Amino acid sequence: MPPFSFRVLHTDGAARRGEMATAHGVVQTPAFMPVGTRGAVKGMTPRDLREVGAEIILGNTYHLWLRPGDGLIARLGGLHRFIGWDGPILTDSGGFQAFSLGSKRVITEDGIRFRSHLDGSEHLLTPEGAAEIQAQLGPDIAMVLDECLAQPASMSAVRESTERSARWARRCRDRFLELQGLDSGDRQLDVNTAESRIPPLDLARGGPELVEGPNPAPQPRVTTPGQAQFGIIQGGTVPELRTLSVEKTLAIGFEAYAIGGLSVGEPADAMYSVVGHTAPQLPADRPRYLMGVGTPLDIVEAVSCGVDLFDCVMPTRNARNGQLFTSGGRLTIKNARYAADEGPLDAACACYTCRTHSRAYLRHLFVSGEIGAAVLNTIHNLRFYLDTMARVRHAIVFGTLETLRQSLQAMFSRPLSDS
Amino acid sequence: MPPFSFRVLHTDGAARRGEMATAHGVVQTPAFMPVGTRGAVKGMTPRDLREVGAEIILGNTYHLWLRPGDGLIARLGGLHRFIGWDGPILTDSGGFQAFSLGSKRVITEDGIRFRSHLDGSEHLLTPEGAAEIQAQLGPDIAMVLDECLAQPASMSAVRESTERSARWARRCRDRFLELQGLDSGDRQLDVNTAESRIPPLDLARGGPELVEGPNPAPQPRVTTPGQAQFGIIQGGTVPELRTLSVEKTLAIGFEAYAIGGLSVGEPADAMYSVVGHTAPQLPADRPRYLMGVGTPLDIVEAVSCGVDLFDCVMPTRNARNGQLFTSGGRLTIKNARYAADEGPLDAACACYTCRTHSRAYLRHLFVSGEIGAAVLNTIHNLRFYLDTMARVRHAIVFGTLETLRQSLQAMFSRPLSDS
Repeated sequence: MPPFSFRVLHTDGAARRGEMATAHGVVQTPAFMPVGTRGAVKGMTPRDLREVGAEIILGNTYHLWLRPGDGLIARLGGLHRFIGWDGPILTDSGGFQAFSLGSKRVITEDGIRFRSHLDGSEHLLTPEGAAEIQAQLGPDIAMVLDECLAQPASMSAVRESTERSARWARRCRDRFLELQGLDSGDRQLDVNTAESRIPPLDLARGGPELVEGPNPAPQPRVTTPGQAQFGIIQGGTVPELRTLSVEKTLAIGFEAYAIGGLSVGEPADAMYSVVGHTAPQLPADRPRYLMGVGTPLDIVEAVSCGVDLFDCVMPTRNARNGQLFTSGGRLTIKNARYAADEGPLDAACACYTCRTHSRAYLRHLFVSGEIGAAVLNTIHNLRFYLDTMARVRHAIVFGTLETLRQSLQAMFSRPLSDS
Repeated sequence: MPPFSFRVLHTDGAARRGEMATAHGVVQTPAFMPVGTRGAVKGMTPRDLREVGAEIILGNTYHLWLRPGDGLIARLGGLHRFIGWDGPILTDSGGFQAFSLGSKRVITEDGIRFRSHLDGSEHLLTPEGAAEIQAQLGPDIAMVLDECLAQPASMSAVRESTERSARWARRCRDRFLELQGLDSGDRQLDVNTAESRIPPLDLARGGPELVEGPNPAPQPRVTTPGQAQFGIIQGGTVPELRTLSVEKTLAIGFEAYAIGGLSVGEPADAMYSVVGHTAPQLPADRPRYLMGVGTPLDIVEAVSCGVDLFDCVMPTRNARNGQLFTSGGRLTIKNARYAADEGPLDAACACYTCRTHSRAYLRHLFVSGEIGAAVLNTIHNLRFYLDTMARVRHAIVFGTLETLRQSLQAMFSRPLSDS
């Protein structure tokens, strides 16, 4: 399998049009990753995802760890094979959901202790464990465990949390390198030639038969040789702490870097400010990933700052709630004005939903609570997001990103098209 | 558009391999109609239905009448266009759901008075109204309004109900012929040449703009010229009353005939007995439709008696409940034994689900309550049913239906494959 690599093909200001190669294929950047929380992008089959133009998807480590278990997924050949998606996958570390979904959570230097939202069972997610679980799941890109601090927080709390995240990152990276059979230093300096240094992995050596269940097995299996690991920049909305986090995280060395701790309720301006401050400090030859962001406009703003990768539940969750993104702005399908509307959701869209069905029918399905409403709306919203990313990539090549940004701003800052 | 017609291509005992032509295309019989209750086969898109091999689907008049309304659907070009399915459609009369879902229902000679399960609003479904609503919906095949008698019922109650159904059938037929611009007698005697007698319909003459809502508009629009109407044989499990119903219904004259009032909780033997008694009394040159039936074995038993058309919610509803039909028998996907099962649901099946996913993954989706579980399970169960119908048609051609019946009996009468 090829190593992880990244190259910039074009730039437009700070924005980059690039290609990210992973163990399971190449991703054109800037890219949006649909969120497949529990091993499925809700309502989509793998072929639906291909058809809407997805090149990489995201899985949630917390959910898959607790059910069906990383051990089971490893035994069945890893996440790609388990879910039937042979393209690139990125998994988060599980930390964010352990914070937001787990109950009775306690953060210590050791890690995050919490009770499962499924059955109340107690678990400890450590930085080493996050690396092990993701080694077993086998995404192309794993994320380090970081602390997600509840906002608002005092300056000293943010500093303490940022420093702990850096210590966790060190431990998580060490365990990752150990699992991949690499010395510390092999991967951080010369990512493009790392492949030759990865010793062939004997998948049979994974120790005794792994037991199904949420606890990482003592001898984790490495499902995807060539897996990359991204560090995460924290630091809240405090510029100096973001810079501190960049320094500490870059000193550890990762295949690439993400900006975390945003899209957690802060104002859009605060987010843009952090991204504008942080992105330029990250290595230009590595992809930059803004976690959990955002609206089409948020994405274009961040691309303009040099960000390359995005994920967000917005297109999929909004679809299930009947909130649709169109070239005319947002549209609430249950609105009575669509009851007899024969037109497609979006006349400018070529997705299956827009080619096949009227707004009147989609409204009927939504109002009736039909499963098909979720399926058809999700196909459209994802296609809208992924088409937007294609437009972003073209705009960078042609030097017209600012024009695109302005048109998206006009489209999505005016009142809802149907309100 | 071609008129409704039917021809028998092969026989094997009483079983018939035929072709039924409708305004929206030809259906190979014996055929199974997936049930699209509210204008959608739950979890399926039109292309999913095509891919699993559906040639004709069923819609429920009761649901579509109450929401979004037959007037609205007519204004939008009819049910085919509204739901994005250009193949044949059959709708029931709405009577069965008015009985089973409506509250405070009262049956009089006039019709069925009930309150909507959606909002409690009061409605009256008359035989004439059932013809009008279905004229507006525009299926290829409409059904007459009949009375669905609650079982058990006294002999006299069954007789009274059977006779009322026959009177309703007469009224429903008269209104149908009037709407289609035909004299009584035009359609009943020479179905195959009816087309030439159908005067060209002026779709613009539908009167004033139709209002949306459950009440049939005063001037119903005829959405599908060439629509056929099937009569329904009632009579409970009493052979003499079935024969009486056949006589009275044939005397009215319909394009074809259905056997109703079964699959309502009676033992399988009682159902087979009624079908065996009734089917041979129906015209050999018209398709015979057994309403609401049933298991794969029920279907083959009825085919052996000369039945040609079937509908049932079983494959779709069971799919959503994780109950799957396979060539090895029934399978309950949530069973723990499938947690690590890498095999497909059914190694003999070529559906998308079986080509793409393991039992382990399908179990995970089901246990996690993912929408994808309903979608993927429905694709499989419908494909199993429609493949079974293809095997039935082949068996009739090759004179091996009895062998197929025995193998299905062995497959589905043994305990669940996973119990």
